[in-house]
Amino acid sequence: MTHSQTIALDAMGGDQAPAAIIEGAAMALEAVPGLKFLFFGESGALAPFLARRPDLAARAELHHTPEKVAPEDKPAAVLKKGKNTSMALAISAVAEGRAQSIVSGGNTGALMALAMFTLGRLPGIDRPAIASVFPTIRGRTVVLDLGANSVCGAENLVQFAVLGAVFARLSGVSENPSVGILNVGTEEMKGREEIREACATLRRVGFPWTFKGFVEGSDIPHGAVDVVVTDGFTGNVALKLAEGMGHFTAHFLREAFMSSWLTRIGAVFAWPAIRRLKRQFDPRDYNGGVFLGLNGICVKSHGGSDAYGVSRAILTAARMVEGGYGVRVAAEVSALHEREKALAAASSPDKAGGPT
Amino acid sequence: MTHSQTIALDAMGGDQAPAAIIEGAAMALEAVPGLKFLFFGESGALAPFLARRPDLAARAELHHTPEKVAPEDKPAAVLKKGKNTSMALAISAVAEGRAQSIVSGGNTGALMALAMFTLGRLPGIDRPAIASVFPTIRGRTVVLDLGANSVCGAENLVQFAVLGAVFARLSGVSENPSVGILNVGTEEMKGREEIREACATLRRVGFPWTFKGFVEGSDIPHGAVDVVVTDGFTGNVALKLAEGMGHFTAHFLREAFMSSWLTRIGAVFAWPAIRRLKRQFDPRDYNGGVFLGLNGICVKSHGGSDAYGVSRAILTAARMVEGGYGVRVAAEVSALHEREKALAAASSPDKAGGPT
Repeated sequence: MTHSQTIALDAMGGDQAPAAIIEGAAMALEAVPGLKFLFFGESGALAPFLARRPDLAARAELHHTPEKVAPEDKPAAVLKKGKNTSMALAISAVAEGRAQSIVSGGNTGALMALAMFTLGRLPGIDRPAIASVFPTIRGRTVVLDLGANSVCGAENLVQFAVLGAVFARLSGVSENPSVGILNVGTEEMKGREEIREACATLRRVGFPWTFKGFVEGSDIPHGAVDVVVTDGFTGNVALKLAEGMGHFTAHFLREAFMSSWLTRIGAVFAWPAIRRLKRQFDPRDYNGGVFLGLNGICVKSHGGSDAYGVSRAILTAARMVEGGYGVRVAAEVSALHEREKALAAASSPDKAGGPT
Repeated sequence: MTHSQTIALDAMGGDQAPAAIIEGAAMALEAVPGLKFLFFGESGALAPFLARRPDLAARAELHHTPEKVAPEDKPAAVLKKGKNTSMALAISAVAEGRAQSIVSGGNTGALMALAMFTLGRLPGIDRPAIASVFPTIRGRTVVLDLGANSVCGAENLVQFAVLGAVFARLSGVSENPSVGILNVGTEEMKGREEIREACATLRRVGFPWTFKGFVEGSDIPHGAVDVVVTDGFTGNVALKLAEGMGHFTAHFLREAFMSSWLTRIGAVFAWPAIRRLKRQFDPRDYNGGVFLGLNGICVKSHGGSDAYGVSRAILTAARMVEGGYGVRVAAEVSALHEREKALAAASSPDKAGGPT
């Protein structure tokens, strides 16, 4: 990774802010020496943590912002009155070119509203989407939208396919990402109209990598495709259900192992296997809800993240900047529109070729 | 349970039919002596299995039906040409009053289409829904719709709340069921319009048991409510995702325990705990997708069910007949409409009380 990029950090967002944000930045800097940081937050709260990390302090600017967005603030209110919050000013740094990406662990709705308002959208993208990486039996799968849009039209889903596929490439999920649209069955006649239409469009216009048509809910944990496209309502339910299933499993495993002296002894022997599982599915490694489709890189770190989780979100942002995410998406969407136009022209030769 | 009920069985539906169907009926009969059965299927295939179970044979009628619905048959084609299939004739037995319920392990789409066409809907119910019971941290939760309706209006969701709550009472999930509508957050302003409207209606008109407003995806495995109401698209994705997460967990548990000699020894000691978990979440105990809202009891047994699973689906049907499911739903829906009318009258006193 090249080192000439600057990351704006909302140092006041998240349960463990500002400590976890500064420590997370320090960990990211160890992984990618040469990153630069702009911290936005209360300087009195930040300075002591920064003082302990001279390597980081040497590559960081501290911008004192006394205001911050609270977890319970409504997005509309933040848009109106939150211009001087650490979150808003960190986003502005990207809009003004002083940083190439922004990472925040704060209020998701406010972050999306501010980022949308301040950064705008990429050319050819009507609505941004929230994406995240899910662990699967076969590896990792990008799922989007996870909640930005409760209702989506066919054209949104087609754009999500491009947004998700380019992200899958840059985040190392797959060089030639396969994409599926989430549906209630895999036959082409099944499901909602907008989904069938999005599927038909991607088949007709063509997709730069692999389009696999419809996938089902079970295909997410099975890892049947690298990118699963869905609307933000279904995606949000799926994300939270998967998280809840994780708690469910942990709860009953614990209960089963604690149920008798025999199973408690079993737990001692099983410990290496359990620890291996815990490491393999450390939620911190999957930290980072990425806002795709904005004219700037914006990553939402989980509100409960510790420093390691924050460092992972920062590295995701750095990889997207490094790979030129926005430019690539714009190129792919434009190529898709060109193919669509060419197909339309080919199917009506009179208009396309003949004299008027 | 009283014993004066007859269950019509599609003996040709499911991967292990007809053996699992007949054995399942025998197991159900052991649990509830006095049940009667009508078997629909190829008599040559059924007779040998029935001959081995004289107790069952004494309480069963065998109806020879050479035709059957195949798993890949389209519902529309079955509606048109499938009148003499074992599935269609078993449903007709309910419509004609010769049986009080029908259980099939066959093609879900065909079963719903035939049952809808032959039995019709309960008074006050516009669309039937498919429900099932999910295991949760706190016990069991009924989720509906799991796939009958990809798109639902507010009035459908309100009716699903009644359908699900009455089922939760009869299936022993809860005497005073709490109901939530699945959404992307728990605040009243979140989510899709039809969901907000259904929530507002249930709050305004009142609900015979407990209405808890919105719940999120994680609330299903956590068991936050006894009944989760959603549209058939979201419900189907959730059902399949939960199944897939089960495979995911089993896969990685196996892999973790097989990863070294130490963890293999651990697996031996952990075996009682693992066996306990397997028993606790035996999918056969959750067998039976129940079609709610039809004018007759229809239970879809999982296609891959063995005899024990089939017996559980049969007992679910028997409990619903015993509890008078249809009559109860009709009474609750009618009471809900009465309250709605009374509220409307109260809010416009001129029209309701005054002279014109």
